[in-house]
Amino acid sequence: MDVEILLVEDDPNDLDLTLRALRRKNVAQRIEIARDGVEALDFIFCQGEHQQRSIEQQPKLIMLDLKLPRVDGIQVLKKIKEDSRTQSIPVVVLTSSAEERDIRSTYELGVNSFVTKPVDFQAFTDTISQLAGYWLQVNQAPRASWIAS
Amino acid sequence: MDVEILLVEDDPNDLDLTLRALRRKNVAQRIEIARDGVEALDFIFCQGEHQQRSIEQQPKLIMLDLKLPRVDGIQVLKKIKEDSRTQSIPVVVLTSSAEERDIRSTYELGVNSFVTKPVDFQAFTDTISQLAGYWLQVNQAPRASWIAS
Repeated sequence: MDVEILLVEDDPNDLDLTLRALRRKNVAQRIEIARDGVEALDFIFCQGEHQQRSIEQQPKLIMLDLKLPRVDGIQVLKKIKEDSRTQSIPVVVLTSSAEERDIRSTYELGVNSFVTKPVDFQAFTDTISQLAGYWLQVNQAPRASWIAS
Repeated sequence: MDVEILLVEDDPNDLDLTLRALRRKNVAQRIEIARDGVEALDFIFCQGEHQQRSIEQQPKLIMLDLKLPRVDGIQVLKKIKEDSRTQSIPVVVLTSSAEERDIRSTYELGVNSFVTKPVDFQAFTDTISQLAGYWLQVNQAPRASWIAS
C-alpha cells in the first residue's frame, strides 16, 4: 500500500508523540519515518535502500522537521521544491523554534505550510491531528501519475 | 484592523455559505470579499479603490475560487506567486470541479493547498471551518513586515 505520510523527525520524543497522535485519531495508517535529511531524500528520490520505489508513488504529505542530522530540513525542502518531479508534493514544516527568518525562508522556498510544535502535550497532540486531518482529508494532492509526468 | 481572510468568490450561494461557516465557528471575523479576479488583484497589490492600503499588510489566508469573471483564479494565483512581495501569502484554491489538470497546474504555480467544494451543505460547512481553523490557528504565516522586505 502507498505511504500516506513521510514523517521526517530525529527527536525520539517528538516522533513518539506524533505517531501516537496520528494513530489515535485514525487519520493516517501508512507512515514512513525518516530520521535525518539523507534518509528523507533517499525515500523521496528513490535512492539507497529505496531504489526499488517509483518516484511516481509519493505520499500525500511530508511532515518535515527543520533541525535534522546530516542534511537539514531547509536543504531537503529546497531539493523537493526545485525538482519538477517532486515539487507538487505538499510539504509542512514542523519546528520547535519558530524564528521569523526560518518562516520566511521556507515560504520563499515554496513550503506549503509552516507549523510550530506546541510545548504542551495536549496542544501538541491536537495540532498534529488537525494538521493530518486537513492534509489527508480536506486538501487534494495531485495524483501520483501526474506528479511525475 | 487587519484583514484575516481575502475571500475571492463570485458565486452568491457559495459566498453566503462560506461566510456563514466562517462566522458560525468564530474562526475569522475580518474578511474582505472580492467578486472577481480584478477586485482580488486590486486588493492584494493595493491598486484602484485599495490604493490606500500598504502591500506589507496582507491577510493570513487567501481563499481563491478558480472560475472568476474578468481575470480567472489561475491568473490571480500566478501574479501572487511570481511577485516576491506577495509570494509568501498562503493561498488555498477552492473549486467545484476538481479536474486533475487544474490541481496539477495550481500546484506547479505554487498554490499552498487545493480544496474541492463539497456539494452537500453540511460537508461544505465542515470543510470551510476545518480549512479556516487550520490556516488561521495552526499554520504560521510570515509576518507582514517580512513579506514585503
